[in-house]
Amino acid sequence: MEEEVSILFMPSGLRGQVAVGTTVLQAAQRLGVDLESICGGQGKCRKCQILLQQGEFSKHRIVSRADHLSELTETELHHQSRKRLKDGRRLGCNARILGDLVVDVPEESQQHKQHIAKAVTAYDIQVQPALRLYTVTLPEPDMHSPLSEKRRLQQALASEHELPIMDCDMSQLRLLQPALAKAGRQITVAVYQFQQIIAVWPGVKEEVYGLAVDLGSTTIAAQLCNLETGKVVATADTMNPQIRFGEDLMSRVSYVMMNEGGDIAMTQVVREAFDQLARRAAKSAGIPVEDILDMTVVANPIMHHLFLGIDPTPLGGAPFALATDQTQVVRAVDLDINLHPEARVCTLPCIAGHIGADTAGMILSERPDLAEEYVLLVDVGTNAEIVLGNRNRLLAASSPTGPAFEGAQITSGQRAAPGAIERVRIDAESLEPSFRVIGCETWSNDPEFAEKSARVGVSGICGSGIIEVVAEMFLAGIIDQDGVIGPVSDKASERVVADGRTFAYVLSEGERSIRITQNDVRAIQLAKAALHAGARLLIDKMGIEKVDRIGLAGAFGSHIDVKYAMVLGLIPDCNLDNVGSVGNAAGTGARIALLNFPSRLEIAEILPKVEKIETAIETKFQEYFIDAMALPHKTDPYEELSRVVTLPALKAKAEGGTDDERRGSRRRRKRA
Amino acid sequence: MEEEVSILFMPSGLRGQVAVGTTVLQAAQRLGVDLESICGGQGKCRKCQILLQQGEFSKHRIVSRADHLSELTETELHHQSRKRLKDGRRLGCNARILGDLVVDVPEESQQHKQHIAKAVTAYDIQVQPALRLYTVTLPEPDMHSPLSEKRRLQQALASEHELPIMDCDMSQLRLLQPALAKAGRQITVAVYQFQQIIAVWPGVKEEVYGLAVDLGSTTIAAQLCNLETGKVVATADTMNPQIRFGEDLMSRVSYVMMNEGGDIAMTQVVREAFDQLARRAAKSAGIPVEDILDMTVVANPIMHHLFLGIDPTPLGGAPFALATDQTQVVRAVDLDINLHPEARVCTLPCIAGHIGADTAGMILSERPDLAEEYVLLVDVGTNAEIVLGNRNRLLAASSPTGPAFEGAQITSGQRAAPGAIERVRIDAESLEPSFRVIGCETWSNDPEFAEKSARVGVSGICGSGIIEVVAEMFLAGIIDQDGVIGPVSDKASERVVADGRTFAYVLSEGERSIRITQNDVRAIQLAKAALHAGARLLIDKMGIEKVDRIGLAGAFGSHIDVKYAMVLGLIPDCNLDNVGSVGNAAGTGARIALLNFPSRLEIAEILPKVEKIETAIETKFQEYFIDAMALPHKTDPYEELSRVVTLPALKAKAEGGTDDERRGSRRRRKRA
Repeated sequence: MEEEVSILFMPSGLRGQVAVGTTVLQAAQRLGVDLESICGGQGKCRKCQILLQQGEFSKHRIVSRADHLSELTETELHHQSRKRLKDGRRLGCNARILGDLVVDVPEESQQHKQHIAKAVTAYDIQVQPALRLYTVTLPEPDMHSPLSEKRRLQQALASEHELPIMDCDMSQLRLLQPALAKAGRQITVAVYQFQQIIAVWPGVKEEVYGLAVDLGSTTIAAQLCNLETGKVVATADTMNPQIRFGEDLMSRVSYVMMNEGGDIAMTQVVREAFDQLARRAAKSAGIPVEDILDMTVVANPIMHHLFLGIDPTPLGGAPFALATDQTQVVRAVDLDINLHPEARVCTLPCIAGHIGADTAGMILSERPDLAEEYVLLVDVGTNAEIVLGNRNRLLAASSPTGPAFEGAQITSGQRAAPGAIERVRIDAESLEPSFRVIGCETWSNDPEFAEKSARVGVSGICGSGIIEVVAEMFLAGIIDQDGVIGPVSDKASERVVADGRTFAYVLSEGERSIRITQNDVRAIQLAKAALHAGARLLIDKMGIEKVDRIGLAGAFGSHIDVKYAMVLGLIPDCNLDNVGSVGNAAGTGARIALLNFPSRLEIAEILPKVEKIETAIETKFQEYFIDAMALPHKTDPYEELSRVVTLPALKAKAEGGTDDERRGSRRRRKRA
Repeated sequence: MEEEVSILFMPSGLRGQVAVGTTVLQAAQRLGVDLESICGGQGKCRKCQILLQQGEFSKHRIVSRADHLSELTETELHHQSRKRLKDGRRLGCNARILGDLVVDVPEESQQHKQHIAKAVTAYDIQVQPALRLYTVTLPEPDMHSPLSEKRRLQQALASEHELPIMDCDMSQLRLLQPALAKAGRQITVAVYQFQQIIAVWPGVKEEVYGLAVDLGSTTIAAQLCNLETGKVVATADTMNPQIRFGEDLMSRVSYVMMNEGGDIAMTQVVREAFDQLARRAAKSAGIPVEDILDMTVVANPIMHHLFLGIDPTPLGGAPFALATDQTQVVRAVDLDINLHPEARVCTLPCIAGHIGADTAGMILSERPDLAEEYVLLVDVGTNAEIVLGNRNRLLAASSPTGPAFEGAQITSGQRAAPGAIERVRIDAESLEPSFRVIGCETWSNDPEFAEKSARVGVSGICGSGIIEVVAEMFLAGIIDQDGVIGPVSDKASERVVADGRTFAYVLSEGERSIRITQNDVRAIQLAKAALHAGARLLIDKMGIEKVDRIGLAGAFGSHIDVKYAMVLGLIPDCNLDNVGSVGNAAGTGARIALLNFPSRLEIAEILPKVEKIETAIETKFQEYFIDAMALPHKTDPYEELSRVVTLPALKAKAEGGTDDERRGSRRRRKRA
């Protein structure tokens, strides 16, 4: 029987018995220890470096000694002489185990399987990219066995890495022989989706990169990731240059309908933006743009189709037919994006005419399909994409909120940018406001505000600000349940002023007067009614009473104060503790798809099972929409909201009181 | 039980019993009758047209009557009204069988599975192209089931044509919705290799084309084929423009070695030639070049690599390593060839560094791998590619014949073109020659020759002429067994003249003197020795005594008189009846691969099993080469050659005679 000894790996704590003579790499692989190797144990990649820990580890009953590892091999000495292997370090594939050992796997040697915690949720990304590097050394060509170099490469990949026999992109096949000649027949190849060799380099290539892109109607945000470590090495964003053709989605589709070749022009500018974005991200990370080999893209259906060069006109009207609702893989160069010549671009699948690959990204990020409880995910943009479900069933819909939540079509509305009002409080007695602007921590009722906000100024109000101000106006009695602004009879205030045939609330009177008009309140009412009705429709379809968890995605979700969302009735009944932002879930989904190839296959399997609810043809949606126009009855704001506030509770309170109480609780107003 | 009736299909004679109500198409499919349908029986493609044969067919015991077929359907009436269906014709998919019937399948309706007889061999091409058309009508998009158009297309192809779910090239996905909108949601798609949708057209598309190209060092020859019928609708050829970089293969490789970017320049010019060739072929067939969707290419390894943009330098010296020995499929547009935007180009696989895809084409054309007897195939160019074997084992080698057989490096040599001497006879007594030139049927000893040959002149001697003249010189005793030219002592002739320190034979003394010099004879000796040694090596390796059949491919094979090949010992011992030209086998192989997709898979399976013999490292080759330099002993030419002449017979005769006899049979000569 072979003599067996004990080996303990740190920091994982994994241990086991192995035969004397086993290499440390083999032992690690058998015990499931995270020790990297890309050359297949040939002493070339130097990824599997380990450290011997000497001493008595009594708890583990191991005495680990230097002579329990075999002596330095020629390969190791060679790497040491070239300063590629630090003193004390060993190559796991060269060092053989001769006795009991404790071995430390330094962080660099663990990278491949490292888990990257995502900021918000507990979901980890396991780095298993679609694009993998393999270093092999091919035997010399031989007239006695006249195989082509390609076939030798295939054989090496099959025998050393158990890869299937695969083809090689023609532009890279051209590089094969020069690469072999350059580095003593050692080459590194990049394999895409275990299907195709898409890159060839001479010698060892250690790092390649991928770009995860969230293509929005307004902004395009890219994360540049190291495909070996999974780390985000740079981010870059830019405005979507299509804005010049139309502010929102529908105006862009109209532009296409009205202008021959309009889609081609929009396709071109967005691809140019991608090209520049990739360049900027690469520059900021200090890598050549040719080292980017993979890209994932999420986008709403219209952006998605325009990016792929598909005329989005059919998405502009019923029946909103997608050209494709599948994952599309194309060469970057075919989209005029200059990365590595054979870099691939993978667009995540769209779900339905109004529910895009961004929602697919959100699902990939939040994985409601794995949840036990009912999860409601909401991504608010010009439309609100809503996903509801759990591991048994998923529903998705898109609700036409309009752009009010983004600060658009609001009198003093603006994007969330420095100088935009983002937080608002209204004193329930004096009706005096205080607010905070992006870029300044001081509230407007602080004496130092003028000085401290001077740099950014007060330029308008953004989405989260508009929600807060309307909610506060409602709580202060400035607007009634129907959304009508009016002077509050028992409070003297110059803040509520006539504005044509209606009233407006003066939030700020600095250099620029910022008013909330009746139209603004109506826009918010319409938006919140659409959002609420969409969520209610899905809850209805699911046949449940309430959801267990609500995730608010995107900039809207990050900035909004969920208390106010609840006051306005934006979101359905849920324990407030279980409502929160899920960050840029679409962008995170793109990154997951970039770093974890299995997730691409999973999302392609999940989506066809998602039940698509088309709000436009659901009669109940209209009913719920009308219902949801009203604002929930006012409560004593701060006491009430510090507890768990639920819509039924608000409603019960409103409906439970006597008429007198109700009248008493409402400030009477004089109409102009 | 269902009532059954008899149906007899003509001209196939296939008959059977079918249930009343079965459509004629269904019956045909069940009985294996060759009745075309591309729309899947929807009455759209009108390919399945049939004719009712009325009358009593007593031999078959069938009374076939008009009312045994259902009445004309609305679809048929519609097609009739639009002149798309001739009177009397029925659609097989619409006409239902009500009683006993005799049905005629006209030729147009059989085309798809028609066999096209190849000129020379008995091997037929079954038309099963890699590129197939399918016409489908998609259901209208529906908000209640929001599938993408791509998915609807996939479903239609799967349900109507049992095709696997496949992806669609992005440029064509862009055309999907416009095409659906244009023709009432009816479209035709082209599917490549049952894997990918590469083209989309509105409505019915009936015909697409493919190009089979034989890319030679000197000429490029293309056959344009209708992929539905298999018919060659046009041919076109052009000189290989790479000639300006070097006449032969090795000089082109040298050019690459000496000139930075030389390979790129040669790649570019050959692709341009392809592009123009495709255009010319399309024009001559009267079709748009965009209707060409597939292309197959055969070429020797160096031409093959240059065409694909691979530096051929490694093929210029030992170990002659191919970059790829596999079938390569690329988009035509990636090779700068403008056909349909997604047209594919498939290069047949190369076998070894000296044995190219042209040899693969020859194997595909002749299928020695299916033969019972031992087949020797020889394609003579600058090198001779030699394949030997049968269904149990195949060997291949390339033998360095040099270009002498093509008329190159011969004093008065030229390509086979009008004015070139192609046939030669030498009177054994007078030593006076007579010859024939290409473009004139009259022999030079005919009094009318001067007049009749005036148009073409006498410009030189081509490959077949040089073989004949050397063989005739040998038979007439002008050259001895070692190949030395000398005056024949007992014959007075001014045809054998001093030429420096050697002699030459004056073949023609017209405007241009055409002489066969000692160097010319040496060149032919070297070439024939190489060819003979290569064949002998393979016969040796195979462990057989003699081959059963010899096929001579290419222009050489077509022009050569096998008797003379045998006299010179070019080809090994074989019954002369079984020696013949196999035409342009490489080009035929390209056409087979174009029209018959399974053959592409077969050749990819055959080739790795072919044993490659590298003559350069076989010591026996050198030995055989030296042996083969001598010319077989002279015999009485015309009596002997009119019987079956075999080398051993010649040898036996030579060896069997006494020294005196031998001396007597040889004309003594005086050396200068």
